[in-house]
Amino acid sequence: MIGLLRNQISSYSNRGINHNELSMKSPEFQPISAVAHPNIAFIKYWGNRDQELRLPLNSSLSMNLSGLETLTTARFDPALDHDIFILSGENVVGPALERVSRFLDHVRSLANTNVYAHVESQNNFPAGAGIASSASAFAALAMAASHAIGLNLDEKDLSRLARRGSGSASRSIPNGFVEWQAGTSDADSFAFSISPADYWDLVDLICVLDTTPKFVGSTGGHALASSSPLQPLRLAHVKDRLEQCRKAILVKDFESFAQVVEEDSHLMHAVMRTSNPPLHYWVPETEIVLWNVLTWRKEGVPACCTVDAGPNVHVLVLSDYAAAVGARLAELPGVQKILKAYPGPGASLV
Amino acid sequence: MIGLLRNQISSYSNRGINHNELSMKSPEFQPISAVAHPNIAFIKYWGNRDQELRLPLNSSLSMNLSGLETLTTARFDPALDHDIFILSGENVVGPALERVSRFLDHVRSLANTNVYAHVESQNNFPAGAGIASSASAFAALAMAASHAIGLNLDEKDLSRLARRGSGSASRSIPNGFVEWQAGTSDADSFAFSISPADYWDLVDLICVLDTTPKFVGSTGGHALASSSPLQPLRLAHVKDRLEQCRKAILVKDFESFAQVVEEDSHLMHAVMRTSNPPLHYWVPETEIVLWNVLTWRKEGVPACCTVDAGPNVHVLVLSDYAAAVGARLAELPGVQKILKAYPGPGASLV
Repeated sequence: MIGLLRNQISSYSNRGINHNELSMKSPEFQPISAVAHPNIAFIKYWGNRDQELRLPLNSSLSMNLSGLETLTTARFDPALDHDIFILSGENVVGPALERVSRFLDHVRSLANTNVYAHVESQNNFPAGAGIASSASAFAALAMAASHAIGLNLDEKDLSRLARRGSGSASRSIPNGFVEWQAGTSDADSFAFSISPADYWDLVDLICVLDTTPKFVGSTGGHALASSSPLQPLRLAHVKDRLEQCRKAILVKDFESFAQVVEEDSHLMHAVMRTSNPPLHYWVPETEIVLWNVLTWRKEGVPACCTVDAGPNVHVLVLSDYAAAVGARLAELPGVQKILKAYPGPGASLV
Repeated sequence: MIGLLRNQISSYSNRGINHNELSMKSPEFQPISAVAHPNIAFIKYWGNRDQELRLPLNSSLSMNLSGLETLTTARFDPALDHDIFILSGENVVGPALERVSRFLDHVRSLANTNVYAHVESQNNFPAGAGIASSASAFAALAMAASHAIGLNLDEKDLSRLARRGSGSASRSIPNGFVEWQAGTSDADSFAFSISPADYWDLVDLICVLDTTPKFVGSTGGHALASSSPLQPLRLAHVKDRLEQCRKAILVKDFESFAQVVEEDSHLMHAVMRTSNPPLHYWVPETEIVLWNVLTWRKEGVPACCTVDAGPNVHVLVLSDYAAAVGARLAELPGVQKILKAYPGPGASLV
């Protein structure tokens, strides 16, 4: 499917031109394609201290998800009088276009130009169902648009740029297992890799329970985070959880990893449920998966769960057990399908 | 308050007659008063294998709550042509009277008589808010009515009798820390004390969050238990949890106790939330207490939580810490008041 997406894009964009050739020409008028993966947060990001700059209230930690990706092509064109955004072949208008345009305004300001862009993007996974399509979308757009406009940002600045589109997009820029340090300002709030994708043979079995769009996107949800009386408690110990999680990954201690990942996820959803208005992302089938996996772990199976801002459950399992756990998950009621993702690379040009 | 209740009852019933004198007279026409305490389940009862006999799907484990009590006086009277049930001074009709009458029918069948009864009952705590008033109510009624009709049941048979009125009432008959063995039939499904009330200096700080009556009583809820796809999972390991809990009490291992108590409570509420129709007993303030207490425990405070079929949180704490934890709980949003209960005795005649 990935190959298919890339072929489709190349048919209208940089057909037959490889990136090395492109970079030798004037970049403004060349379409540039980039691919980025969504990521699953082990230590969650929920709430901003600066909503406009998307400076988060806490550092977070995630893994990129190979197998799932967004492929985006950006082409700046002096002939355009506004930005154009085509998603999955359809022309997008309204708030979604405005969000892309605001992001492109920032790219233009960095490049000191006012040329509008044509952006075309496709995902190979369902949007708006807790698989964080905005993360891969803005990571891919940050990389494609910055190169298309002639900027040559390093990884840190790409991560900072992606963050402006969607906080978690900052984590889809670096490779593998990624930490986004909250930082103190726009300058030092960026993500970096703590270990490469091939460091730990973890698999994310994403149990898709319900692919209808969320009733509140996570951008809106972040604004509600501080309305929960549990949010201060979540934040009070998040540094400890992040350190436990980072260490567990680095020493490959699955049990310690499992405990802190599940605690952090439960705590975020407790904040969500107690915010005003309350956000209930879980469906009954979410709990069925959560509790079954917990039981299996007690029986010795290295598997644990985390849930993002949607009903789907990400079941993290050591790869030797992925087939067996996948078969058991498929038997649970309400599991429509299971997407399998390995630790993935960072964003890259195509 | 307890003393007040007892004085009120004695003013209309066995004024000036102590129990020893009563037992030497013909018991049929004498009013008999009994007191029983509610209990808080550490390992929960949720679901029956026989709804009529209230034979539970699993064994459970609880602690009686001194300080909270139901005081009930029963008097059989050949002049009555139906049962009369007065609760908190008000004449009760409809389903609540029918439930008491059905229970009394069973008492009458044991005594081989058909005399109707006058029953008067008072609680010193709010009913229907997750403090299991039906447990103390039917334990007190079992003891009062059985003696008033001339039966002299031993503890085991009193527990079996109380069970017919409300499953958890079987646990309010014996002293202190109590196990209700599911058993195989009516004959062996009864509760017994595993340790006396003064064995472990535990305190239950009941955080009253909302005293409006539940929208589904637990009797109705039990019938829904098997509609949850999580119920089999809850049952699969409940024996292990009960053994861990019993052992933790007997060796006074608070951390082991805390872990299994919270797990069992969370699992019951997961079953409730995923039943059809779903039962949501938690309010946002429930989660605020749950998460704060968990955080305090990580900081070394011996406290843990359990929630019954209502929003209130029972915070179990070692008595040395009760004052400090109580003060912290009182600061949490939504905590209206805190009831303090020590391990309590079994049901007794007054």
